[in-house]
Amino acid sequence: MTGCLAIVGLGPGAAELRTPQAAAALAVATDLVGYGPYLARVPLRPDQECHASENREELARARQALSLAAAGRFVALVSSGDAGVFAMASAVFEAIEAGEPAWRQLEVSVVPGVSAMLAAAARVGAPLGHDFCAISLSDNLKPWDVLVQRLTAAAAAGFVIALYNPLSRARPWQLGVAFDLLRPLLPGSAPVVFATAVSRPEERIDITTLAAADAARADMRTLVLIGSAATRRIARPGGPPWLYTPRRHGA
Amino acid sequence: MTGCLAIVGLGPGAAELRTPQAAAALAVATDLVGYGPYLARVPLRPDQECHASENREELARARQALSLAAAGRFVALVSSGDAGVFAMASAVFEAIEAGEPAWRQLEVSVVPGVSAMLAAAARVGAPLGHDFCAISLSDNLKPWDVLVQRLTAAAAAGFVIALYNPLSRARPWQLGVAFDLLRPLLPGSAPVVFATAVSRPEERIDITTLAAADAARADMRTLVLIGSAATRRIARPGGPPWLYTPRRHGA
Repeated sequence: MTGCLAIVGLGPGAAELRTPQAAAALAVATDLVGYGPYLARVPLRPDQECHASENREELARARQALSLAAAGRFVALVSSGDAGVFAMASAVFEAIEAGEPAWRQLEVSVVPGVSAMLAAAARVGAPLGHDFCAISLSDNLKPWDVLVQRLTAAAAAGFVIALYNPLSRARPWQLGVAFDLLRPLLPGSAPVVFATAVSRPEERIDITTLAAADAARADMRTLVLIGSAATRRIARPGGPPWLYTPRRHGA
Repeated sequence: MTGCLAIVGLGPGAAELRTPQAAAALAVATDLVGYGPYLARVPLRPDQECHASENREELARARQALSLAAAGRFVALVSSGDAGVFAMASAVFEAIEAGEPAWRQLEVSVVPGVSAMLAAAARVGAPLGHDFCAISLSDNLKPWDVLVQRLTAAAAAGFVIALYNPLSRARPWQLGVAFDLLRPLLPGSAPVVFATAVSRPEERIDITTLAAADAARADMRTLVLIGSAATRRIARPGGPPWLYTPRRHGA
């Protein structure tokens, strides 16, 4: 029996931001595995088996997907956004490395997608138009002092910062402390974007400044963008401003 | 006359990695504007006007697209990868800020896409599975000492590094010097990926180490990924290794 595993990035939400390659990988699957709310975005056929799991069970979910593939099933393991950015692809390879030797011979593919930071940036202009970094603010998987060091280094080096996993019920304080940490390092006028559920019906985009940024505007579905000292704001009559980071340093 | 401008990310190359939203924006356009080789990827209809331009004329191209939209045309300005990542979106907003006041009232949208780093990462596993940064190695638009500072900060902070614009005929030495700069800061065994023309017929993926990385493997179409000290390599029988960066710090 030769199964296979595709780790599929669904994009940020809307089907129109899902690549044809992702749609094809979902269509050929016999089994779909993933976090329940992400699986709910996928149109399922009656002949497809659906294996929904809870949040924060990434490694168990990865092992389940690998076991199904090893048993001959055609498995699509779904992630929101891009599968490789703070999502399921890394968990799968961690499971492969620590798991059964036969798993290394499975046909495993990663189907990329439009990640949350790209979708969020597109909504407000081009804030990622110059050097930037992406940081997961979850300290479930790394010590807080590493996060402090990375945020500090990113701000000092002039990177625009995309924050994934800014906040959850179990981690309510990190985002506010991150803003406090960055305030002495960046201009108070640096733009901050709270982009929640981009491209989904409940989408909400808040544009503010670092001086005024209030962590309470974020929830689990929010991607936070923090501009650098170079990021600019263009006022528009009758609409929210455009934000962009110039291509030229010192522009 | 009310025209509009969509700044469209085509994805890395293959049509199967282009979002339906991007395809729709191309289909409704009366005018397509872009760098010639990117426009060549778009299926054009006889009723569509095509405005191809040379490389390194981003600002003139942005102004042309805005002028056409201001004249009532439906314009799609194409970028490879994601339109907001070292691509045309930033140039458009720069042109808007410095340009005619009427341009601020144009309907401008950014259509995100699968950026080169996401497509490259997917081909080799999940190297962007933890905190990472994206840096353009072109010093046409910023001083080399800023690049040195950012590369150093990124390596010291433990970011995986995606390098855009690593090399061109006019900039032959920067990538080699960047490797030399990073060698004392990262393990020699840190994985380096040269991902050239991902998803296009001429795709070539080279996986090596920082100790062995040779800048001559890159060209203008190459995205370079440099793993952190945490990035792991999983040997596979009969195939190239998988690379991934664990979700957990210190894993």
